Amino acid sequence: MGVVIINFKAYKEGFGLKGLELAKAVEDVANKVDDYIAIAPISLDLQRFVNELSIDVYSQHVDAVNFGSYTGRINAEMIKEVGAKGSLINHSERRLKLADIDFIVDKFKELELVSVVCTNNITTTAAAAALQPDYVAIEPPELIGSGIPVSKAEPEIVENSVKAAKDVYPEIKVLCGAGISKHEDYVTALDLGAEGVLLASGVVKAKDPKAALEELVGLR
Amino acid sequence: MGVVIINFKAYKEGFGLKGLELAKAVEDVANKVDDYIAIAPISLDLQRFVNELSIDVYSQHVDAVNFGSYTGRINAEMIKEVGAKGSLINHSERRLKLADIDFIVDKFKELELVSVVCTNNITTTAAAAALQPDYVAIEPPELIGSGIPVSKAEPEIVENSVKAAKDVYPEIKVLCGAGISKHEDYVTALDLGAEGVLLASGVVKAKDPKAALEELVGLR
Amino acid sequence: MGVVIINFKAYKEGFGLKGLELAKAVEDVANKVDDYIAIAPISLDLQRFVNELSIDVYSQHVDAVNFGSYTGRINAEMIKEVGAKGSLINHSERRLKLADIDFIVDKFKELELVSVVCTNNITTTAAAAALQPDYVAIEPPELIGSGIPVSKAEPEIVENSVKAAKDVYPEIKVLCGAGISKHEDYVTALDLGAEGVLLASGVVKAKDPKAALEELVGLR
Amino acid sequence: MGVVIINFKAYKEGFGLKGLELAKAVEDVANKVDDYIAIAPISLDLQRFVNELSIDVYSQHVDAVNFGSYTGRINAEMIKEVGAKGSLINHSERRLKLADIDFIVDKFKELELVSVVCTNNITTTAAAAALQPDYVAIEPPELIGSGIPVSKAEPEIVENSVKAAKDVYPEIKVLCGAGISKHEDYVTALDLGAEGVLLASGVVKAKDPKAALEELVGLR
Repeated sequence: MGVVIINFKAYKEGFGLKGLELAKAVEDVANKVDDYIAIAPISLDLQRFVNELSIDVYSQHVDAVNFGSYTGRINAEMIKEVGAKGSLINHSERRLKLADIDFIVDKFKELELVSVVCTNNITTTAAAAALQPDYVAIEPPELIGSGIPVSKAEPEIVENSVKAAKDVYPEIKVLCGAGISKHEDYVTALDLGAEGVLLASGVVKAKDPKAALEELVGLR
Repeated sequence: MGVVIINFKAYKEGFGLKGLELAKAVEDVANKVDDYIAIAPISLDLQRFVNELSIDVYSQHVDAVNFGSYTGRINAEMIKEVGAKGSLINHSERRLKLADIDFIVDKFKELELVSVVCTNNITTTAAAAALQPDYVAIEPPELIGSGIPVSKAEPEIVENSVKAAKDVYPEIKVLCGAGISKHEDYVTALDLGAEGVLLASGVVKAKDPKAALEELVGLR
Repeated sequence: MGVVIINFKAYKEGFGLKGLELAKAVEDVANKVDDYIAIAPISLDLQRFVNELSIDVYSQHVDAVNFGSYTGRINAEMIKEVGAKGSLINHSERRLKLADIDFIVDKFKELELVSVVCTNNITTTAAAAALQPDYVAIEPPELIGSGIPVSKAEPEIVENSVKAAKDVYPEIKVLCGAGISKHEDYVTALDLGAEGVLLASGVVKAKDPKAALEELVGLR
Repeated sequence: MGVVIINFKAYKEGFGLKGLELAKAVEDVANKVDDYIAIAPISLDLQRFVNELSIDVYSQHVDAVNFGSYTGRINAEMIKEVGAKGSLINHSERRLKLADIDFIVDKFKELELVSVVCTNNITTTAAAAALQPDYVAIEPPELIGSGIPVSKAEPEIVENSVKAAKDVYPEIKVLCGAGISKHEDYVTALDLGAEGVLLASGVVKAKDPKAALEELVGLR
């Protein structure tokens, strides 16, 4: 009954035809559950995935620019036109300056795009909440890719992030990431007050990604 | 008889449906002349433009990464799979670190992608040539978007860039950019030893882009 | 009765022997008033200015690193050892990633250094306040170096920034910058709830910097 | 009979009073040999180390800016005025854009500062040589801090870097770095055509830095 956003990163398994196949497996699972499941593929795949899938597709990043004389940048207006639902912003692998996060979140409101601002601890979660994005996704850097679920290893981080974020902006929804792949860890995250999880390798790099996702949402 | 690469930048006129329409106009002109005319759209459009056009499509940028745990990055392998011919690298609006330019040029050779390294003066042109890319595109920053053609304002920069680049790597091809929109400036660039030109606003922001390109290549 | 921090930037007039002379003029004025007047010189001058002056000296920037294998970086521990009182953080000319601002503010608390986080609007001011620094300094980018005082042109920005910041972290002190050089603008800033001002060119680039500062604090 | 430049990095042992003590130990060794031995401390220490030492002092980094409205940056003119001999440029821990390396090397020539451009392989060494700096310092990234000397592990990299650099700019001097701490490795580097070595942890983090340096230059 939660939110699951899967970041395909620049994983070979998440790009191009393989990525589309993976995305369709995700769509299959999404159609069987009440959880909100969405994906974030590489920019090159965004348009195609939007066209070929019924689930929501997010960008992994947007740049803090308008239309104009910029080379090699994509902006909020562009991902909107292409049909993206929103974007990850300030992912740990694509950190942004504070003023740029603010610029993007603001633009997203205007365009009715969903903003998912990634943070690394309770304090930056509170700071991000002050910008009033739709979601904040807390990922303790020491747990990213560790296989150790944040909801088990540091439940107080999840709990206190939710509290800190809602104190600043009550409407915000909090996701947690880092190390989550089992159903019980997902459930624990929800119990701790999170709306859901932000995943990557746990699904994309799994031997059987579809089975991994089914396991996560409790279908197995 | 030269090379014309048109950078669509993040111009509103060069993106999405408008961008595709513009790209088809470019294709029409390309079919009427012997010049090699190619375009460089935004990453979100790359795949679609490749599919719908017969002219070569370049990326505006690639990141210096392999496949893996990177968010919001695109690499050489990806643009290859999507069908791009190559990419602009180190554009003045997307400058890269020296080690990253080298990484990308190297990867492009392996993948048989065409590398177009942008530079800002004669010395950086020589430096870029030492990395042995296919093209180096010299754009004096003071002339970018000025409407003053480099081939007229600073012919010695074009001439000496060609000389400097070929001294270091004889097989290299040199483009020049900045301010070129008229046929005579294009011809002058070729006369000065350049293989062609790198354009942007001169075509994309023209009132009638097709007419502007026809004028440039001497059809009007 | 307010706070005046003067950023010497990389102005020729604010560096080396000229900078020291300027700093001594600032010190003279500081000794005549109750306002808290401090300066922020270039890193190369930090140690010397601390040694030769009785007023507080701030760094213009610190990097978000510990001691270790970093080249060309300065950290919080270093400026502490050298005798700096604190540092500007995230100045508009040296913007930082959100996670790095948080790292630095946190380290400053541990080392009892004074943190002055610069922001560009009300929302980023609230976000910075969530990190609980000593000061937040709001500088609307469109007014920087304009000669138009923020306290006159956009009084509501000052007022609302103070409100937004204190809502998030009541102990915070708010400075405002951009365009302030006259006494009445300084007084207005204080009346609007700011603790003081962050200045640069208004003093450093003035024909007579000492007179400019005296004017600002109401000695003329 | 070679060149030894010691990068003090942001090592605790290389900063402040400890750093000065270390620098004086280096000076002692320098006075006993014909080798040219110089150091590169953190910017905060630059002025003081220049004043208190007879050996040449280099900056670890400079920014590609002139005097002006820049915060938290140091430029070539500043380190010249402070008495630095030159600077490391583009160190692997402080990589720069190609156009910025060019800007700095150019400015250094005008100011008669010694430029030491760091590179990571043979191709980037050739590219850097095209900018005509005084020195290029090649450090294969995989060997940095490894304890494995480049002159032993990859002698052909040293040899071919020297060749590649001198082909492009015959007057250039080549240093090599990464893993060098023993006299025989230093001698091998010179035999392979390098003018000397760029060191850091091998001396600064040694239990007895003075003994380590004496060993390196063959005094033990």
